[in-house]
Amino acid sequence: MRIVSLAGGIGGARFLRGLKAAAPDSEITVIGNTGDDITLFGLRVCPDLDTVMYTLGGGINEEQGWGRRDESHTVKEELAAYGMEPQWFGLGDRDFATHIVRSQMLAAGYPLSQITEALCDRWQPGVRLLPMSDDRTETHVVVADEKGRRAIHFQEWWVKLRASVPAEQILLVGAEDAEPAPGVLEAIRDADVVILPPSNPVVSIGTILQIPGIRAALEDKTVVGVSPIIGGAPVRGMADACLTAIGVETSAQAVLELYGSRLLDGWLVAEEDKGVALDGVTVEARPLLMDSPEATRDIAAAALTLATALRHPA
Amino acid sequence: MRIVSLAGGIGGARFLRGLKAAAPDSEITVIGNTGDDITLFGLRVCPDLDTVMYTLGGGINEEQGWGRRDESHTVKEELAAYGMEPQWFGLGDRDFATHIVRSQMLAAGYPLSQITEALCDRWQPGVRLLPMSDDRTETHVVVADEKGRRAIHFQEWWVKLRASVPAEQILLVGAEDAEPAPGVLEAIRDADVVILPPSNPVVSIGTILQIPGIRAALEDKTVVGVSPIIGGAPVRGMADACLTAIGVETSAQAVLELYGSRLLDGWLVAEEDKGVALDGVTVEARPLLMDSPEATRDIAAAALTLATALRHPA
Repeated sequence: MRIVSLAGGIGGARFLRGLKAAAPDSEITVIGNTGDDITLFGLRVCPDLDTVMYTLGGGINEEQGWGRRDESHTVKEELAAYGMEPQWFGLGDRDFATHIVRSQMLAAGYPLSQITEALCDRWQPGVRLLPMSDDRTETHVVVADEKGRRAIHFQEWWVKLRASVPAEQILLVGAEDAEPAPGVLEAIRDADVVILPPSNPVVSIGTILQIPGIRAALEDKTVVGVSPIIGGAPVRGMADACLTAIGVETSAQAVLELYGSRLLDGWLVAEEDKGVALDGVTVEARPLLMDSPEATRDIAAAALTLATALRHPA
Repeated sequence: MRIVSLAGGIGGARFLRGLKAAAPDSEITVIGNTGDDITLFGLRVCPDLDTVMYTLGGGINEEQGWGRRDESHTVKEELAAYGMEPQWFGLGDRDFATHIVRSQMLAAGYPLSQITEALCDRWQPGVRLLPMSDDRTETHVVVADEKGRRAIHFQEWWVKLRASVPAEQILLVGAEDAEPAPGVLEAIRDADVVILPPSNPVVSIGTILQIPGIRAALEDKTVVGVSPIIGGAPVRGMADACLTAIGVETSAQAVLELYGSRLLDGWLVAEEDKGVALDGVTVEARPLLMDSPEATRDIAAAALTLATALRHPA
């Protein structure tokens, strides 16, 4: 079976590990969010791609969910000793090497998709990991505080401010001119089913859907999503702050409506969200907490089973 | 007193520490060699400037003579795990931070002289450290081996091959179009005396002298050099391999003649080299082994004393 999955960071990466376990013989293509990407100290950092790569490749810091295992922070401390900003982004020494390789290859003219493939040569994540686009896009957040109304990089809002300042708008800068990375549309076209993990529906999945051509390609396919909201609260992260920013309620029902029935064929919700419904979408309620590898695998298996049952010709 | 000194790496840096101790109230400007600079993993590395900065700023690895104290090598190991080359250049994690800062500032358009000043804000080396030029020059070495006749970067010859392949030529690529960095000619003009440490006369001092305008400016000043050769052998390093490449014998006499009487007013040689002489140059023999901070200070003091005695109006 050929599966396409979209993914943000921690939640998406853990779900993908479950998906691999649920469908070990499948060919899985992951379209990764690059809206979170940021240039720090002159180096290009792709947090979501790396989280997927490290998680599936066995290098992730399991407790933290992001960054490398057995990590040290010498380079970061030295940069701080030089007075370099920002100091709020937690780059470890092992992680720095990834960004140095990526930045060197970018400077040499390689597109991000080829660089990601080269990095994955080492990590062997067991999936084909594609950035959503080789074109540079960045999620910016419009906030208003004592410094006035201003647009800041998503990471500044998310990591530095911990989403404590309300977002008035969330914008993917560069989206309108971006093209899907090579292989993205082909993978969607050739997919038997598409699975949306419980990633952030605004700044992870929502960002990928904003790259021209991707949503339309997905609408032709059998797509099953896993709700990132359980009983009115995000499974993890601060998806509620992102949903509020775009005027959407933090509920499994509201996210279902946000994705819509043109995109979705099936929707998995938690048992406490039984009753969620939308015309044209098959909704199933089941345990959705990814609190163990086995539970996560079972959720992914349920999504695959539903997708297979709903499968329609492209 | 205003002193100008030229410097390469380890030997020069140690001598400068002695010079600071010998003349604590002086204003010392160091013109550093940048011919050894190399771009590794997309980052600009200036080994000689950093060795001077770390040595005088208290951050040097004393045993090794270069690189940082309490150093780790996580980034280097990770880059190797990605298959990145070269792996023969020993970059530590603390050191990487310096190169990241420098590279970020270079990409932002700052000249190397301003970057060096910014780095020295942290290290407070107690001297004014100027690169010989803001223009990029690189020492290349022409070698002939089983791969044929080819030009390789000085660091590849020096660090990777340990100068085991004879050099046919040593060339400073870019020298003819390079200008002295801002402040270099002014510092020489305003100097009371100029001291040449026992740095490599070919690839350290010799390189600095190749930047158009620097040698001519020095010829107007009182210049005293310290021989890097004692009894026919380099004090440290592989200066003999460099001298051979340019057809100069490895002796205190030959290096004196290489520098010449237009440049030099005084020349310190080791006691075993008593008898070395050149018309127009005052030669003094004394212990020259820099085997302790005190011995090094005494050598620097002797050079200063001789320079002061020989001082002539510009």
